[in-house]
Amino acid sequence: MNDFVYYAPTKVFFGKGKHKDIGKIVKDYGFDNIMLQYGKESIKKSGLYDEVMLSLSEHGIKVVEMGGVEPNPKLAFVRDAVKVAKETGVQMILAVGGGSVLDSSKYTAAGALYDGDVWDFPTGKATLEKSLPVGCILTLAAAGSEMSSSAVVTNMEENMKRGFGSEHNRCLFAVMNPELTYSVSKYQTACGVVDIMAHTMERYFVPLEPTDLTDRIAESVLKTTIEAGKTLMDNPEDYDARANMMWASSLSHNDLTGCGRRNALCVHQLEHALSGEYDEIAHGAGLAVLFPAWAKYIYKYNIPRFAQFARRVWDCTEKDDESAALSGINSMAEYFKSIGMPSKLSDFGLDETCIDRLCDLCTFGRQRTVKSYVDMDYEVIKDIFKLCL
Amino acid sequence: MNDFVYYAPTKVFFGKGKHKDIGKIVKDYGFDNIMLQYGKESIKKSGLYDEVMLSLSEHGIKVVEMGGVEPNPKLAFVRDAVKVAKETGVQMILAVGGGSVLDSSKYTAAGALYDGDVWDFPTGKATLEKSLPVGCILTLAAAGSEMSSSAVVTNMEENMKRGFGSEHNRCLFAVMNPELTYSVSKYQTACGVVDIMAHTMERYFVPLEPTDLTDRIAESVLKTTIEAGKTLMDNPEDYDARANMMWASSLSHNDLTGCGRRNALCVHQLEHALSGEYDEIAHGAGLAVLFPAWAKYIYKYNIPRFAQFARRVWDCTEKDDESAALSGINSMAEYFKSIGMPSKLSDFGLDETCIDRLCDLCTFGRQRTVKSYVDMDYEVIKDIFKLCL
Repeated sequence: MNDFVYYAPTKVFFGKGKHKDIGKIVKDYGFDNIMLQYGKESIKKSGLYDEVMLSLSEHGIKVVEMGGVEPNPKLAFVRDAVKVAKETGVQMILAVGGGSVLDSSKYTAAGALYDGDVWDFPTGKATLEKSLPVGCILTLAAAGSEMSSSAVVTNMEENMKRGFGSEHNRCLFAVMNPELTYSVSKYQTACGVVDIMAHTMERYFVPLEPTDLTDRIAESVLKTTIEAGKTLMDNPEDYDARANMMWASSLSHNDLTGCGRRNALCVHQLEHALSGEYDEIAHGAGLAVLFPAWAKYIYKYNIPRFAQFARRVWDCTEKDDESAALSGINSMAEYFKSIGMPSKLSDFGLDETCIDRLCDLCTFGRQRTVKSYVDMDYEVIKDIFKLCL
Repeated sequence: MNDFVYYAPTKVFFGKGKHKDIGKIVKDYGFDNIMLQYGKESIKKSGLYDEVMLSLSEHGIKVVEMGGVEPNPKLAFVRDAVKVAKETGVQMILAVGGGSVLDSSKYTAAGALYDGDVWDFPTGKATLEKSLPVGCILTLAAAGSEMSSSAVVTNMEENMKRGFGSEHNRCLFAVMNPELTYSVSKYQTACGVVDIMAHTMERYFVPLEPTDLTDRIAESVLKTTIEAGKTLMDNPEDYDARANMMWASSLSHNDLTGCGRRNALCVHQLEHALSGEYDEIAHGAGLAVLFPAWAKYIYKYNIPRFAQFARRVWDCTEKDDESAALSGINSMAEYFKSIGMPSKLSDFGLDETCIDRLCDLCTFGRQRTVKSYVDMDYEVIKDIFKLCL
């Protein structure tokens, strides 16, 4: 087991109706002047917006609104929000939404206490030293941003989706009411399932073993998410399935599934090129195409690991390790298809002509490799994208 | 799944040699005047004391020493330590040791900022509102106090072992170097295995299902601990086994294994009577006797749950639920014996004449019941103790 630091201080308020306590929660932390970020109109249609505003106003909390965060949140929006945060002197950012709203809020919180441009953090020009507190009311189980140390936004001018990790990116608190995800579409639910699984598998398939407890916890998150996903395709208002999936989203990405291992996020790096280039592609859908292809390429560099994955997560019974490994990868691919996820680039209307551009993006124009069981250079990544055809 | 609050903010520094960073860690938090608590002379013999003092002194940290914490830490010691903490104005307590030193430190930290007697907290006369920060260097994987919200001490005047839970009881940080547990004896290692398993099972065997993810994580902690325990009986210096066991001790009791469930700790309440009355009995050894007896009594009130435990944790293959349940309980009892734990009260030199007194202690003289799948009153508890003969 490798050395590690584990620090997941986010306080989680989990359960039915919990979002109605938001005013009290914010007040108990001593804040009375906050910024509210949210996405499109859906939280207004659902009534969530009204409930949140009522609770905040009942506790005398002044709210500066920044609605309109887009999926794959944009740097331009964040820069505006930072300006508003500085002008209004808000004490914290409350994100009501999913990973996009959360990441936008985290970037805003980082920029609010920094004199330069917030894009300095992902580009490494500056290190985040302090940040406004961020709290959230989660409406989507997928990105795990509610407990993670990372945040990702897209710089449209440079067509670049970039994230950065920092202890200061951890939310102060997260309010999680699984009922708020009842209205998430089947497609978006499936995208969430893939994202949660990917966050877990990205930590599972890295060198450094044995890490028995971490392995088993990761396998627990995977099995639970697979089962919840199946249930939700038929019954989107199954509370326990929504609850298990929501909690899995947090645990998949708060570092628990990676203690003693490295966090490579190598398939994420390939996918960020894909959904960065094609804004209409949902992150989870991109991962559903890329993960099985990556696994088919890479498994041969660690057959016992893929065999363990196959047996423990997918209940594969092949005695021979390589057969089991391949069976597990196949089970994963079939599962993604069974919950309505795409399996090929052509499902996005793309063909092989896009591949060179994607490989360029992944490698910053052949300037870097992506680390996995082997260093993935331009040619390796090209082979993996070809397996997506 | 039940509503829950999850809050485990302790920052964990895990790995080889990490205790040598203690001076820097304390300094980074901004402290320069601390109290050091530890137990008997073992940390001096091992050299740990010197390494800790050297690191603290290199960072200019002033240390007030309170050595001599006993196993089943005593209230009288805590009261002295509180007095010293108030007189010296220390900013935090550093615990170097296992659960006893940690719990003593937590009690001290609670008392240091309170005008009344620290015993007011476990007796419910006062609610803990604030506490000095507590950090630790862990030398024993067992109690899980390094991430838990609870603390237990014994009041010898009243012959009463009492704990209390509070958010303020969470450690600020925990330094965990598994190498520091190489020297823990086989017997104490086995006691730790039982304690970790008990913390997990106490949350596993309560009403309220389904909680799929929490179940699987609990099963992961159990399987890992069982395997680590087996390995360590033969090879006490197996780093990965020590590391897995140490991390399991933290996760078993930081509430992760109980999210969405209740935390009953009912067998602990029986055991506290036992080791409270007989100070020479190790907590883990008491649990090893009581847990199988309790399970044999209670399983019939939730056979499917005990069958799941049997199949997933002990790999039992009986098709019939009741047979599987009994097989799982038997596997647990046999396992405890296999790692050198006692299985009967007679192993402690006790016979049936002790039972009435123990039942009195458990029920505060027939004034309360202990909650489980059934309310355990005096007579039920007597039946369970009889199963320990």
